[in-house]
Amino acid sequence: MKKEKKVNDTNLSIEELVSHLLEIISAYKDEIETPHPFDIAKELEKLRELDEEEYKSICKKMPSELLAETLCEMPNYVQEEISEVISEKKIANIVSKMDSDDASMLIYNIAQDHEDAAETILSKLDDEDKEVIEKLNSYEENVAGSHMQSELFSAKLDENIGLALKRLKQLKEIDELDNIFHAYLIDKDDKFIGTIGLEELILFEHSQSFDDIPKEKIKNYSCKDNDDISDVVETFTNYNLSALAVIDENEKLVGRITHDDIHDIIQEQNTKQIYSLAGVNDEAEHEEDIVIIGKNRAFWLGINLITAILASLVIGIFDSTIQSLVALAVLMPIVASMGGNAGTQTLTVTVRQMALGEISYTDAKKTIKKEVLISLVNGLLFAVVIGIIAFIWFSMPLLGVVIALSMVINLLSAGFFGAVIPIVLEKFDVDPAIGSTVILTTVTDVVGFFSFLGLATIILL
Amino acid sequence: MKKEKKVNDTNLSIEELVSHLLEIISAYKDEIETPHPFDIAKELEKLRELDEEEYKSICKKMPSELLAETLCEMPNYVQEEISEVISEKKIANIVSKMDSDDASMLIYNIAQDHEDAAETILSKLDDEDKEVIEKLNSYEENVAGSHMQSELFSAKLDENIGLALKRLKQLKEIDELDNIFHAYLIDKDDKFIGTIGLEELILFEHSQSFDDIPKEKIKNYSCKDNDDISDVVETFTNYNLSALAVIDENEKLVGRITHDDIHDIIQEQNTKQIYSLAGVNDEAEHEEDIVIIGKNRAFWLGINLITAILASLVIGIFDSTIQSLVALAVLMPIVASMGGNAGTQTLTVTVRQMALGEISYTDAKKTIKKEVLISLVNGLLFAVVIGIIAFIWFSMPLLGVVIALSMVINLLSAGFFGAVIPIVLEKFDVDPAIGSTVILTTVTDVVGFFSFLGLATIILL
Repeated sequence: MKKEKKVNDTNLSIEELVSHLLEIISAYKDEIETPHPFDIAKELEKLRELDEEEYKSICKKMPSELLAETLCEMPNYVQEEISEVISEKKIANIVSKMDSDDASMLIYNIAQDHEDAAETILSKLDDEDKEVIEKLNSYEENVAGSHMQSELFSAKLDENIGLALKRLKQLKEIDELDNIFHAYLIDKDDKFIGTIGLEELILFEHSQSFDDIPKEKIKNYSCKDNDDISDVVETFTNYNLSALAVIDENEKLVGRITHDDIHDIIQEQNTKQIYSLAGVNDEAEHEEDIVIIGKNRAFWLGINLITAILASLVIGIFDSTIQSLVALAVLMPIVASMGGNAGTQTLTVTVRQMALGEISYTDAKKTIKKEVLISLVNGLLFAVVIGIIAFIWFSMPLLGVVIALSMVINLLSAGFFGAVIPIVLEKFDVDPAIGSTVILTTVTDVVGFFSFLGLATIILL
Repeated sequence: MKKEKKVNDTNLSIEELVSHLLEIISAYKDEIETPHPFDIAKELEKLRELDEEEYKSICKKMPSELLAETLCEMPNYVQEEISEVISEKKIANIVSKMDSDDASMLIYNIAQDHEDAAETILSKLDDEDKEVIEKLNSYEENVAGSHMQSELFSAKLDENIGLALKRLKQLKEIDELDNIFHAYLIDKDDKFIGTIGLEELILFEHSQSFDDIPKEKIKNYSCKDNDDISDVVETFTNYNLSALAVIDENEKLVGRITHDDIHDIIQEQNTKQIYSLAGVNDEAEHEEDIVIIGKNRAFWLGINLITAILASLVIGIFDSTIQSLVALAVLMPIVASMGGNAGTQTLTVTVRQMALGEISYTDAKKTIKKEVLISLVNGLLFAVVIGIIAFIWFSMPLLGVVIALSMVINLLSAGFFGAVIPIVLEKFDVDPAIGSTVILTTVTDVVGFFSFLGLATIILL
């Protein structure tokens, strides 16, 4: 793969990093090719970790345009504190050179801890930039509008194709537009009509107008600015789109979302899902402050403590049974653990397949049936295995029967609840990944201990 | 969002599905606009579930080109059995109309259960198609080559830009090329030189040749056909690419990978990661056969059984301690459960951040330190809480001390091992998501039971 050796993997010293970054800056000024902003950002981030003073000094030396490109590639927590590093005037200059989505994100991040600085920066922008950024930042985070950029290539339906392409050429020459995949066609009132790919456009004579393009070449995929971003991701995935027009409630074209934005959103969604299943808050984990991370984890540990005590209360009911047969205390965690594991398997598969759109609500019954069947078969299998082991270990045939029976009961309920819990949560519009693991293990612990110790009390004593 | 109402969400009857699909077929024949192949595929899949005979009959009625587009959107298990539905001759016809990556995937899927059919289909193709498909299928699944398509728009460096665009126009008119983002520039020996975006190309006069394009407009990102696909995904993500050239060991341009392929690979990687953490095999879960799914889950349940027995053996050491104080049996699962949960939090965050490239091996020490610190603080917090609860519950101050001490010990080891296990696995080139959960819970169970019951034996008896 032709790319710069990743700084992350090497152990460049502070001096080497500084001198390399200075080289990049002077190459940029001399209009010699520089590394991709992503690679510069990586080096700068590394330097920031190793020596904050040197990092600040390099940031100050970077030309606004280069710093604009680089900042876009830096994580949120670096953007949040950039107003402590360089002047608000320079940031305003940087912001004016960014695409609107990157610019609004930067302002949003700065405003997290430095609202005054964000205000000052906004006040230094020209009215148009300011308005666009304020508009984008007015959207909720989970809607299409907050992920769109207003820079796009639009054309009126009656415009001449050749003239439109000339206009695109001019816009590109002054660096106004980038990553152009389509022309977005609009009518006289700026209402969105449809999309024509750049690669299709070259099929037509420059003397033709957009009106002359056959209807089937024009795609009318679009999303509303207030559409849930998850639906937008689905549209991108299903139809393999490169970019999607965003329209407002009056069908006016207001922006576009590109595939690389979607890509980032997908990774964020996946991180959130994985973290939620483990009782971790994805936003808190991205903070640098260890106290915030710890607090958020403590929340779920606290919930887990309550459910663990619940399970202990169940055990407490049977304390005299355990007293008369300590083997029960030795074996009982096996039943609970197997139930927890089998249930987690089912839960994870169900949550994931729902997220990927592979299970819809109408398929719910089928899913539950499948999961119950699998857990029944595996329950029987491991019932026999653990039954024999318990029998041999403690030389008590009936103890084998008790643990075997409770294994079947617990794995069966694990399969059932592992599938039902996320489906029910989804029905009530709750994210099925959040909290479902805790509910599930509560069930498998309680059912596991209760069935095992209960059956032991009935059968053995 | 402007799209057809999703069939998935509605409850269309078999008759309605059949009549709608027949409408689509006749619209297609009359060259009237039809839904996106994805939506047709969804309807066809639904019909297949409800009535296999009707499904087969519709497949037979679909024109090859329409079926080719639709099949690309169908899941692997539907592709695997397509040779049971329509004739090998028609499949060969379909394959010849597909992009090379889709075609090779279809042949690969058919060959899973029907190797003879796959051979017959290949033999009916023209030599060029056959060679390309065999070449693509010769790559390992985890390398770039197996995800590329050979269809691309290349141009010799000395070619005239206007003529090249005319050539692209012709190729597009006969439907040979689609999703074109770039022209790939090659030298006389077909060696890859660089990439110029279509949107950049229009900046230049048609009378110019590619030679005249300034060097900085030409990007030289590429990957080798044998590069690991994870590295390719990283390149796409880092540099926000739309497509990437694939070259062979002689630097000859052999294909390209587009962003929608990468998108699918990312989702697959994420599914694998989530499933692995839960002890589920992602490939097995995609089988329709419930026995295969059950068997694969049983494997991890079996491993879990062994580790659960290991934990029980630890409890067994202290059976006389438990006999003399049953409260220990009641409380011991709390310590183990809290350790398991805290450890899973750490493990999940570590695995995910490693996968996203946010932790590199050099950051390992920092990560471990952070995790140990968080778990120490949370350990102390929950030690106090559970200590007081145990003291009040059983009116034994020393029992409170014992459970508090073991809580600190177990949460500390949970944090340490939750971070260390994936880092060590990664160092030995083992996927840190696979098996790490089982290893971790073994540690937290054993440490939890041993520290709690051990301390109880020393302090209480």
